Parts: sequence; C-alpha cells; structure tokens
Amino acid sequence: MTLLAEQTTTEAATALERADVAVLPVGSTEQHGPALPLGMDHMAAEAFAKTAQERDDAVVLPTIPVGVSVHHRQFDGTLYVSEGTFEAFVRETLESLAEHGCQKAVLVNGHGGNSNALRSVARTLRDEETMFAPPWNWWDSVGDLADELFEEEGGHADAMESSVLWHVREDLIRPTELEAAESGASDGWGESIHGASLGFDTIDFSESGAVGKPTHASPDAGAQLFEAARDELHALLDWLVERPLEACWPRGHV
Amino acid sequence: MTLLAEQTTTEAATALERADVAVLPVGSTEQHGPALPLGMDHMAAEAFAKTAQERDDAVVLPTIPVGVSVHHRQFDGTLYVSEGTFEAFVRETLESLAEHGCQKAVLVNGHGGNSNALRSVARTLRDEETMFAPPWNWWDSVGDLADELFEEEGGHADAMESSVLWHVREDLIRPTELEAAESGASDGWGESIHGASLGFDTIDFSESGAVGKPTHASPDAGAQLFEAARDELHALLDWLVERPLEACWPRGHV
Amino acid sequence: MTLLAEQTTTEAATALERADVAVLPVGSTEQHGPALPLGMDHMAAEAFAKTAQERDDAVVLPTIPVGVSVHHRQFDGTLYVSEGTFEAFVRETLESLAEHGCQKAVLVNGHGGNSNALRSVARTLRDEETMFAPPWNWWDSVGDLADELFEEEGGHADAMESSVLWHVREDLIRPTELEAAESGASDGWGESIHGASLGFDTIDFSESGAVGKPTHASPDAGAQLFEAARDELHALLDWLVERPLEACWPRGHV
Amino acid sequence: MTLLAEQTTTEAATALERADVAVLPVGSTEQHGPALPLGMDHMAAEAFAKTAQERDDAVVLPTIPVGVSVHHRQFDGTLYVSEGTFEAFVRETLESLAEHGCQKAVLVNGHGGNSNALRSVARTLRDEETMFAPPWNWWDSVGDLADELFEEEGGHADAMESSVLWHVREDLIRPTELEAAESGASDGWGESIHGASLGFDTIDFSESGAVGKPTHASPDAGAQLFEAARDELHALLDWLVERPLEACWPRGHV
Amino acid sequence: MTLLAEQTTTEAATALERADVAVLPVGSTEQHGPALPLGMDHMAAEAFAKTAQERDDAVVLPTIPVGVSVHHRQFDGTLYVSEGTFEAFVRETLESLAEHGCQKAVLVNGHGGNSNALRSVARTLRDEETMFAPPWNWWDSVGDLADELFEEEGGHADAMESSVLWHVREDLIRPTELEAAESGASDGWGESIHGASLGFDTIDFSESGAVGKPTHASPDAGAQLFEAARDELHALLDWLVERPLEACWPRGHV
Amino acid sequence: MTLLAEQTTTEAATALERADVAVLPVGSTEQHGPALPLGMDHMAAEAFAKTAQERDDAVVLPTIPVGVSVHHRQFDGTLYVSEGTFEAFVRETLESLAEHGCQKAVLVNGHGGNSNALRSVARTLRDEETMFAPPWNWWDSVGDLADELFEEEGGHADAMESSVLWHVREDLIRPTELEAAESGASDGWGESIHGASLGFDTIDFSESGAVGKPTHASPDAGAQLFEAARDELHALLDWLVERPLEACWPRGHV
Repeated sequence: MTLLAEQTTTEAATALERADVAVLPVGSTEQHGPALPLGMDHMAAEAFAKTAQERDDAVVLPTIPVGVSVHHRQFDGTLYVSEGTFEAFVRETLESLAEHGCQKAVLVNGHGGNSNALRSVARTLRDEETMFAPPWNWWDSVGDLADELFEEEGGHADAMESSVLWHVREDLIRPTELEAAESGASDGWGESIHGASLGFDTIDFSESGAVGKPTHASPDAGAQLFEAARDELHALLDWLVERPLEACWPRGHV
Repeated sequence: MTLLAEQTTTEAATALERADVAVLPVGSTEQHGPALPLGMDHMAAEAFAKTAQERDDAVVLPTIPVGVSVHHRQFDGTLYVSEGTFEAFVRETLESLAEHGCQKAVLVNGHGGNSNALRSVARTLRDEETMFAPPWNWWDSVGDLADELFEEEGGHADAMESSVLWHVREDLIRPTELEAAESGASDGWGESIHGASLGFDTIDFSESGAVGKPTHASPDAGAQLFEAARDELHALLDWLVERPLEACWPRGHV
Repeated sequence: MTLLAEQTTTEAATALERADVAVLPVGSTEQHGPALPLGMDHMAAEAFAKTAQERDDAVVLPTIPVGVSVHHRQFDGTLYVSEGTFEAFVRETLESLAEHGCQKAVLVNGHGGNSNALRSVARTLRDEETMFAPPWNWWDSVGDLADELFEEEGGHADAMESSVLWHVREDLIRPTELEAAESGASDGWGESIHGASLGFDTIDFSESGAVGKPTHASPDAGAQLFEAARDELHALLDWLVERPLEACWPRGHV
Repeated sequence: MTLLAEQTTTEAATALERADVAVLPVGSTEQHGPALPLGMDHMAAEAFAKTAQERDDAVVLPTIPVGVSVHHRQFDGTLYVSEGTFEAFVRETLESLAEHGCQKAVLVNGHGGNSNALRSVARTLRDEETMFAPPWNWWDSVGDLADELFEEEGGHADAMESSVLWHVREDLIRPTELEAAESGASDGWGESIHGASLGFDTIDFSESGAVGKPTHASPDAGAQLFEAARDELHALLDWLVERPLEACWPRGHV
Repeated sequence: MTLLAEQTTTEAATALERADVAVLPVGSTEQHGPALPLGMDHMAAEAFAKTAQERDDAVVLPTIPVGVSVHHRQFDGTLYVSEGTFEAFVRETLESLAEHGCQKAVLVNGHGGNSNALRSVARTLRDEETMFAPPWNWWDSVGDLADELFEEEGGHADAMESSVLWHVREDLIRPTELEAAESGASDGWGESIHGASLGFDTIDFSESGAVGKPTHASPDAGAQLFEAARDELHALLDWLVERPLEACWPRGHV
Repeated sequence: MTLLAEQTTTEAATALERADVAVLPVGSTEQHGPALPLGMDHMAAEAFAKTAQERDDAVVLPTIPVGVSVHHRQFDGTLYVSEGTFEAFVRETLESLAEHGCQKAVLVNGHGGNSNALRSVARTLRDEETMFAPPWNWWDSVGDLADELFEEEGGHADAMESSVLWHVREDLIRPTELEAAESGASDGWGESIHGASLGFDTIDFSESGAVGKPTHASPDAGAQLFEAARDELHALLDWLVERPLEACWPRGHV
C-alpha cells in the first residue's frame, strides 16, 4: 500500500504524517555463481522491505540496486560503486527524507559488502540527530535457523541465499546449476594465514564464485527463512515505532 | 530477456559478449503534483529501457531511482542526492560494467534535473576512453510530436509527462486530480527577471508543483509519445551499435 | 567610480555600507574562432559589469577570467578549470564579500559553459542565506533583439557575440577573418542523434570553432545589443535593490 | 636492530635492500576502562612489531598511535580521527615506503575499529600493485588459545587484552581496578535487536567501558598469548618473504 | 603584444609555437590599509607580467585577482578563497595551457599569502612533468635594494609596496593617508611569543592593516624597485628559456 | 607523570580537569644525511614535549611520527604523507581532545615541512573556537643562541639539529659520519634564481641530504640549545595557561 514512489506528493504528506518509520532496501548487482541471478541481494532486500507495505506505520522507499561489490569484479556482470559513493548516496537519500519529518528508518540490507558503509551512514545520521536508521542484514536475524537447516559455514550464494531466492523469485533460480556452483565453491569466506585475512577478492578463494553448500538449498527452507526473518524485521519495526526519539540519539560525555 | 540483474554471472558472460551496448535507466523520486506518483521519472525511464530487453545487442541495467531533485524539496516525499553524489554513482556503476568489456551505453533519463550530471558522466567516461555513454532524455526525442499534441510550454508533471505515465503505469495516474494539478500550476518553468533566471525551487513559482497543462493529458497521447520515443531510442541504439568504437572517442588537438 | 579593487579598505567600508548589491563579472579565456579574441567572454562580462560603476548602490568586483571551457580544449589558447573548481572559486569569493555585510549580487556571466556552476553557486548561497546572487547571462536578456537583428541559430562566436565584441573592444575584432569563421562554422550548437545530444566538444561539430553566422555581425548591431542588455542589467539591479532580503531566501516546506 | 626511524638514510638503504617486508604498528589512544591505559592498542601493536627487529628480512616502521575510535568518544582521554583520514595516513605512509623498493608489509593492528580502514588500505595498495600489505590483528591469531584460557565473549579491555598489557607493559596495568572494570562491563560487544546491531557507541552498552571479564586476566596468560601471537606473526612474515611478488597481485577477469 | 586573451585562437597557435614560457600574474584583493587600493597585489603582479608582452618568447595570461587572504578578513573589502581552491584554480589553468604545448611558466605573484599554494602548484606540475612553473614573488627579487632604500622590517602595505603602487598606478595611491597607515601600523609581521608565531590575523597586531613604514614610500623609490624587479624577472625568463626541459623535471631516487 | 596514553580513562578525567593545556609532539621520519637517524624530527619533538610531563597543568599526547616530507623522497627511508592528510590527522586528533574540555594546546614541531599544515590546523581550530593551538618550532625559539654557537646558515641536519640529537639521543648520533654529511652538504636551503626559489627537492641542491655545517655540532651545544628551547617552551605554556580563553579567539570585523 505504501510504496513511497507510487504515492503522489499529496498522498505522501498523509503517509509520512502517519508513518513512524521508513524502510530502505539496499543490495547489489554482483555475481552469485552460476545458479543465482546477479540481482540476488537487492531482490531479497526488496522482498523483505515490501512486506512492510501492509503497515500503516511504515513507508517503503525505492530499492538501491548497486552496492559495494568491488571484490566480485572479476566475475561477469558484477556492478559496483566505491564505499564512499554508496555511503553518500544512502545518507543523502535519507537526509532528504528527514526533511519531511520522518526520523526513523531501517536499512534493509541484502549484501554483506555494504555493511561498513551502512554502519557509517547510521552513525552519521544519529550523531547529527537527523535520523535513527540502523542497518538490518536479513541473514543476521536468522542465523540460528540457518544453522539448523544447513550444515555449512557459507557466506555467499550458499544454501541460505539460494533458498531465500528460491522462495522470493522462484522464476530466477537455476536448480540445475547448483551442483556446478557447489563444485567450484569454497567452504568459508576468505583465506586466513596465521591470523591475517588474505582473501581480498572472491576469485582468490572460490572458482565458481559461491561459498558454502548451494545444493543444500530448497524452496521450503527458503520459505522458513523468509518468514522467520520477516517476523524479526517486523518486530524490529514495532520496537522502533515504540522507542521515543530522544532515546535514539547519542549519549553525552560521561 | 536481458535484464542484467536477472542473469547469472555465467549467462551475463554470454550476454555481454553478444551485446554491444548497455541501457541504464535513471530517474528520480520527487513530487509530480497531486496527480502523478513520486516515481514518475524513474518509472518512465525504466519503461523505455525495458523495451530494449527484446534486443540481442543490448543489456538493461537496474534502475537508479533517486536523482538530483533538491529543487523539489519543499514538497512531501521528494528524495534527492547531491549532483556530485549522483554523478559518482552513475559513473562508477558504468566503469564497473566496462571492466566486463562493454564500452557503449545509453543513459535513459527520466528527469531533467539529472541532465548536467549525466553530461558530466558521459564526458568523463569518453575522455578516459572507458565508455561512450550519451544521455538520452525521452522528452527531447519527441518534442515536435508533443507540440502537435498539446498547447503547453510545460516542463514538469505536465500533459506530456502525465500522458506517458498514463500509458506506462495506468494504475498510478489519478485522473481526478489533474484539475487540481493544473489550477495550481505555472505555465512555464522558473521565473525570468530581466534575463536572470530566478526560480530556484519549484515552490517559488508553482503552487501545485506542476508546470504546464496536465488536464490535456490522455492515455492515447501517452501511447503515441511512448511509441515515438521508443522508436527514437531504438534508432539511437542501432546507430550506436554500428558506430566503430574509435569514432566514439574524443578528437585530438587541432 | 566603485570598482572595489580600486578602493582602499576605508573607502570600501563606506562603499559597502552604501551599496546594496555587488556585481561580479565572470567569463572565460577560450577559442572564439579566427575572428574574435580568446578573452571574448570575460571582456564582455567586464564591459557590462563596469556600467554599474556609475551607480551608488553597487560595487563592481574584479573579473574572473578563466571558466568552464573544457569543451574547447582542442583549440589553441583555450584555458579552463573544472566545474567544481570554478564553482568553489566564485562561491568562496562571494562568501568573503558577505562577511562585510553585502548580501545581494549579480553574477554577470559571459560564458554559457559557466551556467551550471553559477546556478549551483547561487543555490548554495541562497540555501545558506549567505547571499542572493542570481546569474545573469547577457545574451539571455536580449534574445528577441538578436532574433530581429540576425538570422542565425548561433551559439558561439556568432553574429551576436561578434557584434558585441566589436562594440566593446573594437580594437580586438578581426573583420577580415569573419568569413573564415563562418565558412568553418556549424549552424547550431552540438549534434543531436535521435534525441541524444552528442557534441561533447566543439571540435566534434565545428571546424573553425564558431557556431552561427559571424559575417552578419556589425558594430551597430553590437551597440544596440549592448545598450539593450545593459538596460536589462540595470533594471535587474534596480529590482534587486528594491527586493527585501527576506523575500530572497528559500521558502519553507509546504 | 632495524627500527627504521633509528637508521640513517645510508643505513636505511642497506636495510631496505636486505629486507623483504616492512612492519607497521597501528593502534589507538582510547578508553580501555579503569584498569588499562589509553594507549593499550598502540602499545600492544608496537610490542608485537618490535619482535621483528631481530629479523634481517624486516624493517619496523614507527607506530601510528591514534586511530578510528569515535565510538569511545564519551569516555575521557579518547582521541580519534575519521576513518578516511586514518586510511589516507596509513596508505600514504606505505606508498612513500614503496618508493624505496619495499613492496610487502604487515599492518600490525592493535585496534578492531581500525580494521575496515586497514582492509581498504590493503586493497588499494594491492590493486595499484604498489604493495602487498595485509592487516594482522594480534587477537585474531590466537582466538583458540584465548578460548582455552578464559570464559568470556569479551571484545574490549577484556581478560585477553588485560593479560597482554600485563605482559608487555607490566608498569601500566592497574590490577586493583580490574574489579571495577568488570562490574561495569557488558558481556559482549554491542546490542542486537531482532538482527539489527544497535550499539553505536560503547557507552550505549557498557558503563565502565570494558566488555568481557577483565578479572580473569593474568600476566601468565598474557605471556602465553603474546608468545603464541608473536609466533603467528613471524610465521606470517616467513610466508610473506617466501611468496613471490607476482603471486601477491590481484587476479585478472575470469 | 602577446596578451593571450587578446589573441584569436589562430594567432595563439602561432604565439604558443614561438613562445617558450608563459607568465601568469596572480595576486589578491585585500585590505592594504587606508592609503593603498584593495587590488594592490594583483595590480603589481599584472604590471610586472605585462612587461613580458614585449618578448616574442613569452605569452602573458590573464590575471587571477583573488587569492589566499583569509587573515585580512576583518578589514572591509577583503575577498578571499581557500588555499585549496586557489591552488586548484591556478594548477588547472596551467594544466589546460600545457595541452597546447607550453611547458614552462613563471607564476608572477603579488601576495605573500599565496606562496604556499603556488609552491604546491609548482611541485605538482613538476612531479607530473606537466610544466615547470616556479613562483616569483616580486619583492623577493629586490630585497637588498629595499633594504638600501628604506629602514623598515615591513611586510604589508609598507614603504616597499606603497612605492611600487605609486609607480605602477599613480592614480590609486592616497598620499595623504600614508600617515594614518603608519600611525596604526605594526613594525613587523605577526607576533612571536617564546618562539611561537601567534599573529593569526592582521587585526591581531595591526590597527590600520599596514605593517612597516608607509610614509617612507616615494614614486622614485617605486620606479627603482619596479625596474630592478622587472630586470630580475626578465633574467629569470631568459634563464628558463635556455634551460632544457629535461633539466627541469625531478631527479630520480638516489 | 602525565603522558596521556599511559593514563586510564578514569585518571585522564582527573588529569584533563586539572590541566589547562595539551602538548602534541609532531615530526617526521625522513633523511637527515649519513650522521643522523631518520626519526630526528619526531625524536626531538618528543623530547621537548616530554619535559612537560612534570607539569600538573599539562598533558602530553602521543607523538605523530610521520609528516610532510615529500621533498626528501629521493633519499632512502623517507616516509611522508600529503599536506592535506597530515593536517587532517592533527586537526581531528585535537578536535577529539577538545570534546573532553581541553581547549588549549601547543603543537611541538620538529620538522619545518610541517609548518604550513600546522598553521592551517591552528587557524581552523581557532576560527571554530574549538581550541587555541599555536605551533611551536623548537629551532625558532633559540635562533639567537644558534647564531652564537655556530657559523652556519644551515637548515637541515646541520650543526644545530645534530647537536640537539646528540643531546637527546646520544646513542643515535654517528659522529664519524658528520664529515661525510658536511662534505656533501649545501650551505643554505634551496636555490634562488633571480628571486625565484627553485629547490623543489633536497636532492636538487644537496648531495648528502644535509644543509649546513654538521661537523660544528657537539653534545655540549646540544645541551645548551635543548635547555634554552625547553625554557622557552615552558614560558609559552605558562603564558598560555594564564591567557583567558576569550582572549584566544579571533577578533570580529573592524
């Protein structure tokens, strides 16, 4: 109901008056191995964000589809911007929203590589007392369930991501390619040598671009994960709506 | 067929090998008066861009939905980033695409406020010999037809834009609000005093946010405009495909 | 009488107390074909600006002689700075003036390529409520007269510019070269292909560097244009002087 | 033997000819609760780095004592610079070293808040093929040992850090304050609400500034941790010395 | 003869082919006490630069009239830009000139506050091997003569500057105000407390804005200083013309 | 007693409450010829700064060991960062200190190349009314004594610097190399041609990297210089402590 971009400015006035929190989906367009589409991360973020359409107390912003993916650049189709540019784009978008009176948001994130930039956005907006906008990575909210469902360390285009994509965009999973994804995958993210993390690019440690056990994916696991994460997101939105704005701002010097 | 974000990296390798040109839709999320949705500009850009899906020689990139709209900031729902941030986001996205071998693109633009940034992107990419990526404003390609169809100077949320939206997203036009849009509209863009242009913000000269004659809009006019502009876009793509890359780069010193 | 640079600081205190508005001439040093000097644009801007010396309510700032002319770089003698640098130079100059209490100015501009940067300067200064400083392009104020005088689309080193130079710096026109300028000129600015603007550099579409009908120039036409534009400038200054400062600042959110 | 700053330029020429790798200690000056000195992180980094003095194949650079510690700013004595400034300072320092022919380094890091900036430095230097300079966080190399020694999740001024400080700067531990540190400590870093990480500043979740079980610290545990981590660092240096430079640079497009 | 801005592009081609060196006058518009005009520094620079018009081996660029004068901001009429903006403006102007084949220049400077920025410009252009462009402060070339002529430490709007202005712009000196300038002047620049330099702004140590003995000025001293400095400038130009370009670039690592 | 980095946050609260002024040592790691260590400048700065430990009214910050030394880059072991990065690092460090209530500092500087950046830091902090932090170059405070002690113009790794190093770090002087330093030294800094300063890099005018008469150095002269400069520093600290904060901020417009 309340996709901001589908409202007129007059309707937006009403919606923003009523809403306590905005939802901004951000992701990436980057390689996810041979079985998942490049848009995996922004598609998942958008799917979670759109579940907030049903809420009167939230508005859903348009999806930012390109993110911080330089480490996937050796694989075809990967698009990326620098961390600084991504951070500025997200921060300025939210600063413009705040001019209309909305001072809370959730950054619904589909891509781990965006995390540092999003934390930085959230810190800046909070320090300025412009907006309280914590990032929410969908996979962080359902780590325990994923551990139950799959035996994988994973990290990219793995059973967890593949399942969720299977659920939200069934038309875009290539089940016959999951085998190829897995046979060229590494078990875990990066490469650690005596305590130093050395996997700068995915190509340094994964041949197919995947990390984990993609063949363990299933649409049913995807449905479970999606629903569980969605519930967490809505619980977070409830919590945010309740929280007084003054309690959101930074604490003073001790 | 070839929305890049829906391809896997393996498929993207094939698609990018075959394709000669990319299409990047860019727009804005900003007030368009009481009758049109905030997403007008990125929705139109996306609609034009997606007509290139049918072509084997093109790939369509995901839509960038927020642009340079500071001058609409007094109207609810308007989102914006600075010109520098928008320019960097678009340029870096295209630079990452060029790493996969694609060196031609059309920037399908739905928002006049983006024009200067897009020209700057195109200049930089050309001067670096990274990519030849001219901006294409859909309305610039069908100016004569619009003059035939409507008697308006227009410029924003006018008969021309309203008609095209009516055609591409019939569900999002609010026909009953066109009257209100027009009664609060100005005739032309900005305000000129003795040769100086003084309309810094839309609110300086338009009460409803619209500029032009929205009530003159019709779905039929929208269909005509859309088809004519689409044909121009495809003619441009044909021309670009044919043009040797060497002919695209800057000329040397005289 | 009141060229700021010729005043002492003590006299400037008086002049700035009395003056309501500053006049800043900006232009470029760039190719203007074989018949006009490289300094055309800053010379014209300076000539217009200096007509404000006679006014007690204005101070005239020193001329900034280099501008945004990268698109002329293939022609000998063209100097340029980036848009960002030009914008910062103009903006900071005006911000320093504002510290002395002057909060209105006209940016008397002689070069179209500077326009975007000047609009951006004016927006920033207005949004900060530092200064109200609209750009004024001399040619925009006399478009109708030029249409009467010449049959040309024009755009650069054309009949209009040549005439004005002939009037303000008769010693620097090369009448015998107007023919060469015209024979190598294009009719209009740039090159449009199916709605995309493709003339990135002047050299892409003009052999001589001129655009228009330089041979149509005459000192008499120059005198008419100069006087008409000067009158518009002074009307603008009158208007600015009258306008209350509060009416100059941005309007609030609707 | 080879602290670079103690060499003359003539001696440095010899040392840099002989050395294959540089060691740059970086840390912070920030609150570490009531029992540890503000310089904890740069002191630990320096202590580890100086163990490389004994090696002919390494040079040790001077310590950078201030880092990315904005999240500790509410506690007295915390110094910090922005992530961008820290990153530039470290990167430019290493770029200047590379001019003398040294193209490998280890960034011996004592502060978790520096990690993102250091990864970014390492990526840039590698992508430019200027230097291969992986960050090494001392605590990452001895996680298993710490798990054996202490029952804590920890994260800041905890048993692990306190022990190492006790070992390297016995004069600067305040054992009588460990109780106070612990009584005001949180168990783990930050605060997670439905998958969103919400502890922006340490003050948001820890009263004393510590996170973990400081009272579990002991000089003996410190000695074990220090020696184990030092061995890992030297193994990393050995590995780096052996690794051909060509194997260090980024891989090409697939 | 060869003021670049007065040439056409065709003539500039010839002039730049023939010329070995460019001359760029830079100064400021800032308070010079009650007896000298605000434009003192750019007027002097321009006067010296224009003496190079007579040379076939030099081209004179247009004058940049605003500089790094923040420390004079409390006095009416002072204009200034930041050091970074000034540096960028000068450097980019010269980089654009270099595209036409001119790789030597003298930065004829009239304002001490510009010095650091100009040294930085010169270093960058030299390190890039774009241009060899040493700054030349007119007063530095005639220090001995000034010591002979006047008994002053001086530093700003002093006998030396006043004399030169008297010579180059006799119409703009206010001889009756020299007394007032001197009575409110300090003897030397700034204020030193136990080795620390504490005069941040001129207003901190000079009431009139002048530093030195303005009343010692005379048109005759001005003529002597001007001629002596002009001779030094031309000797420098001769030296530069003779010097092979390869001898101008930075030396390699020892 | 009060090295900030050795205090806990609790102790720092007390120390900062009691202290009126901070002392920040900054220097460089750069060639100082064959007789002095690369760390000369930061070692001297640190030695002077640490004499303030004894004072209850001061806190000593950790030493920043790398500075603006690009002009020494051709000599082995020289490290450097850009002026902008150095300035940001110092300024942000002090801004973070000011959050704890300390608004006065002395920038104890050991390297002439840092001076412009430090002046800029001091100006910015003062203009913001964040902190009054004048730079103090140790050699500037004892110029007369140095003139008495040595017959040299000097400027780098000269008798003055060598003597002070001999005093503060006797273990790091190489007395047998002073001869070599001097035989390859220039007499004075840089190279002046007709008033233009042309020595961009030390290598342009000094073979050994030294400038002056290193053989004139002695530990006794070093002791005299050190004590005299230390006394000046403490007199400056006394003066600063006494000075009311309001007297430190910039004066208003005249």
